[in-house]
Amino acid sequence: MSNYNAPIRDMQFVMRELAGLDEVAQLPGNEEVSADLVDAILEEADKFASGVLAPLNRIGDQEGAKWKDGEVATAPGWKDAYTQFRESGWTAVAGDPNYGGQGLPKLLSTAVMEMWKSANMAFSLCPMLTTGAIEALMLRGTDEQKDMYLPKMVSGEWTGTMNLTEPQAGSDLAAVRTKAEPQGDGTYKIFGQKIFITYGEHDMTDNIIHLVLARLPDAPEGVKGISLFVVPKFLVNADGSLGARNDVHCVSIEHKLGIHASPTAVLAFGDNGGAIGTLVGEPNRGLEYMFIMMNEARFAVGMEGLALSERAYQHALQYAKDRIQGTEAGVRGGPKVSIIHHADVRRLLMNMKSKTEAMRALAYVVGAASDKAHNHPDEAVRAQNQAFVDLMIPVVKGWCTENSIDVASDGVQVHGGMGFIEETGAAQHLRDARITTIYEGTTAIQANDLIGRKIARENGVTIAGVAQAMRSVEAELAAVGGEAFTAIARPLGAGIAAVEEAVAYILATYGKDVKAASVGSVPFLKLLGIVAGGWQMGRAALIAKHKLDAGEGEASFYQSKIVTARYYADHVLAQAPGLAYTVVNGAAGALELAEEQF
Amino acid sequence: MSNYNAPIRDMQFVMRELAGLDEVAQLPGNEEVSADLVDAILEEADKFASGVLAPLNRIGDQEGAKWKDGEVATAPGWKDAYTQFRESGWTAVAGDPNYGGQGLPKLLSTAVMEMWKSANMAFSLCPMLTTGAIEALMLRGTDEQKDMYLPKMVSGEWTGTMNLTEPQAGSDLAAVRTKAEPQGDGTYKIFGQKIFITYGEHDMTDNIIHLVLARLPDAPEGVKGISLFVVPKFLVNADGSLGARNDVHCVSIEHKLGIHASPTAVLAFGDNGGAIGTLVGEPNRGLEYMFIMMNEARFAVGMEGLALSERAYQHALQYAKDRIQGTEAGVRGGPKVSIIHHADVRRLLMNMKSKTEAMRALAYVVGAASDKAHNHPDEAVRAQNQAFVDLMIPVVKGWCTENSIDVASDGVQVHGGMGFIEETGAAQHLRDARITTIYEGTTAIQANDLIGRKIARENGVTIAGVAQAMRSVEAELAAVGGEAFTAIARPLGAGIAAVEEAVAYILATYGKDVKAASVGSVPFLKLLGIVAGGWQMGRAALIAKHKLDAGEGEASFYQSKIVTARYYADHVLAQAPGLAYTVVNGAAGALELAEEQF
Repeated sequence: MSNYNAPIRDMQFVMRELAGLDEVAQLPGNEEVSADLVDAILEEADKFASGVLAPLNRIGDQEGAKWKDGEVATAPGWKDAYTQFRESGWTAVAGDPNYGGQGLPKLLSTAVMEMWKSANMAFSLCPMLTTGAIEALMLRGTDEQKDMYLPKMVSGEWTGTMNLTEPQAGSDLAAVRTKAEPQGDGTYKIFGQKIFITYGEHDMTDNIIHLVLARLPDAPEGVKGISLFVVPKFLVNADGSLGARNDVHCVSIEHKLGIHASPTAVLAFGDNGGAIGTLVGEPNRGLEYMFIMMNEARFAVGMEGLALSERAYQHALQYAKDRIQGTEAGVRGGPKVSIIHHADVRRLLMNMKSKTEAMRALAYVVGAASDKAHNHPDEAVRAQNQAFVDLMIPVVKGWCTENSIDVASDGVQVHGGMGFIEETGAAQHLRDARITTIYEGTTAIQANDLIGRKIARENGVTIAGVAQAMRSVEAELAAVGGEAFTAIARPLGAGIAAVEEAVAYILATYGKDVKAASVGSVPFLKLLGIVAGGWQMGRAALIAKHKLDAGEGEASFYQSKIVTARYYADHVLAQAPGLAYTVVNGAAGALELAEEQF
Repeated sequence: MSNYNAPIRDMQFVMRELAGLDEVAQLPGNEEVSADLVDAILEEADKFASGVLAPLNRIGDQEGAKWKDGEVATAPGWKDAYTQFRESGWTAVAGDPNYGGQGLPKLLSTAVMEMWKSANMAFSLCPMLTTGAIEALMLRGTDEQKDMYLPKMVSGEWTGTMNLTEPQAGSDLAAVRTKAEPQGDGTYKIFGQKIFITYGEHDMTDNIIHLVLARLPDAPEGVKGISLFVVPKFLVNADGSLGARNDVHCVSIEHKLGIHASPTAVLAFGDNGGAIGTLVGEPNRGLEYMFIMMNEARFAVGMEGLALSERAYQHALQYAKDRIQGTEAGVRGGPKVSIIHHADVRRLLMNMKSKTEAMRALAYVVGAASDKAHNHPDEAVRAQNQAFVDLMIPVVKGWCTENSIDVASDGVQVHGGMGFIEETGAAQHLRDARITTIYEGTTAIQANDLIGRKIARENGVTIAGVAQAMRSVEAELAAVGGEAFTAIARPLGAGIAAVEEAVAYILATYGKDVKAASVGSVPFLKLLGIVAGGWQMGRAALIAKHKLDAGEGEASFYQSKIVTARYYADHVLAQAPGLAYTVVNGAAGALELAEEQF
């Protein structure tokens, strides 16, 4: 069993000094946001995360959710925790004040979300999916739908789900076959089967609101014939009370590698005459709505990568400080030491720490940009921030989640043989992390979005601006000089050059040979993540230097920022040129074999 | 459920054309080894692996081994399979003919071992540990011990175990506390607890022979006070029949992330008066004996990395050919295609394929060198081969096992959402692979052995010779010219330079700052593995070119060798310079933080 304590000091640093909390607090709508309020919320969230959610993480893994006769029982303690969670107002943090939400900035809700996901990722999926369903309704729901569902979803009394996947329609949603038949009274009967529905059935609330992709009878083939419907588990009467049980049933739940406590449901719609639903927005535009919402969901899954890395790091660090084994290197017969004294354990811990801090820095900066994209008074600033957010969402999603597998695996390694024993808990983080590169679009899907819609389509304008911003950080680092800052500046410079080289290749190739460009898409995504993370680590080191020079703040914390940035440069940024080489040269070898030669 | 079929074509290629089977067959003692015999053995082994062992892999994972009242029941079908295995003579393949073994060359037994480990890694651990115990007895056992135990161990009637680890003594065997009290009659009473004992208790044979590290009463502290004992589960009478039950009992077995079917026992020695054992070799030299044997065991675990990668690859490949999803890139509305048509799925498959082939090539070449080191008539050739084997064992162990985690994870990714569902079986390979970088010495222990005993201690003589051999392959590749061969030669050349740069740093640093050198040890091990794999892939491409030019052999196979080598160069070898950068520059950032700054 591992404890979890929110890394509040680093969160505060990133929010205030890297992501510009002050600026976010000055945006219209954030008038009540103050440093004190932010600190109070972080502290309360930490209490809940560490006190209530974290202790349930292991139980959830061991017991899992259990299906019986169409009902799903969550793990022991789960329902109580959820009730406490919503009664404490945590479901409403980011919600629209018109429907009972607190409307806090994304930058703050991001930090809070990190805590839920670190403490108990399987639990966090329930409010995360509910948020997705809320957004769909906010975006295109009728006033009637909004009034009927949103207050109880924002308050957490009801949860929400997203029903996209079918057995033949995973990454390829064009293949969705679920049907929606209009009943002539404004309602539709839904028939079909959906799989991989997170919290598609559970016992924590008395209603579940399903958002469902389905086809109308006259819909065109493919992606342009898919509509979005809202289908509650229990129909809702005009007075808001629960009506009849709807014809949507949980047929089974999956036996998964990880997130055992999060029920992954197979849902059958319409086996007994049709599940009643209503249309959200216009017919045949369901997939388009999904894409608009997808930024949020993908960002949230990227946060899972960060959050699991933080949890795995804390877990491994505690073990490394406690476990006595061997003597200092070269000191045979000397006193036994804790394993954090051993060079490779330190390397593993620094890997985990530096990547986690880089991910947090990048994710929160993107969160703050999202606030500015939504609420900044200047339209040009909004547009610029939105372009940055759009570029970085697939990076946050893809890079943070790919990282989390490596970081959690490093955490297992720190534990040695104990890491392989399930009771230790280190292996759970690895098992949980393994889904994050798959759901809400695999890393390949993120990477194709990145090189296609986010770079090639706009001829690399936004990425060029980002590279320029990175270059000025590199120049500042080089100007500081000295061993440590030179050690940071040099690999950052090489990393930026690697990004530029790879972008040039993508721009030259995408239009004429999309497959060749695609071979390099995931390596490019990792490259951009590594360098963007290094950019933020470089910024952090510069800020730390200024604080140390000014004699302000906690010296030990700021010194560690410089050391960690240096480690990241030498061990992580160092990989950037090799990735660019692969992007630029790697297509021919990947595509040449005939299928039968495999 | 996945099928397994041994990759016999590639095994034959590597054995014959890369590792020099003919030369091995001409060594003294191998007079009966012919190409036909080798093919027949591979074919029979494949039948057993694919027909008997592979189908039990999933059942073993699901059911696991079960402990009850000190007894351990293996999974359904396990005992029958083991009986068939030994009755077919598979336990005796590499054994000494004086004790009923077939004495076949290491190169051949390596290929056969790969099959067992691909088909069913949890099963393969039982004969693997028995082989370790056999070697200990062969090496230092008395004639009486050898006659009593070896025939039945070689035949597989009894199995063997290695009892090293104790709760406080994992990587640090100096901390072993188990005691051995001489009884004055040539026997000893053993008292203590051992953990992580693979197949420490099971129901597949009627006796188990434990090799146990323990301390004599007058033993010095630390590593020089540890002796080796043989402690059978049932004492053996003079006529070879089973005698009294010995005082060694299985207290529990571990609940692990993977290899569920391999019982990992906690063994209590002497709770009821003392477990009777006899000394192996001389007092206080137990650890030294272990080190001599360790090469074999580490090589075998390295083979697990290769074998699991092969299994994961076959599994993912089948899925990629079967699963229909989406259309060809850029062809919206076109016909749906199997996912092997998608660029990133190909990239993942080529990652898996090229790394697996590189690992096989390197491991078999090391296996053949081991044959020459043992049996070549020329002492200088023996010594040269032994030095190469000693250098490469930690690489085969560390690099292949680290690879297997990535390869198995890539295999999960190819499966998309289905990869996360346990029924699919892809996740099992990842769970099973996760132990391989830990047991028989973690990757860090391999890496420290590599830079210390294998490089610094001999001032880099052997590695310099290897680099020279690599350089001549690079020159041959460059001489062929043309796009593909240039594409292979260039990153290989950069990789060799990276190895040379890193070796120079290690030689300069190890003696004066062992901790700084150690920070780079795992990155260096990976670097050397990548480049050594690339060296063998380059050799394979050259051989393929000669065959194609001569119009000999199957063109499709040889063409794929060139393409795969090129892929490996662009996507894997490309990482080498970055790793060298980390080796040379990475110490300061890793070591600077104080413990409280973590």
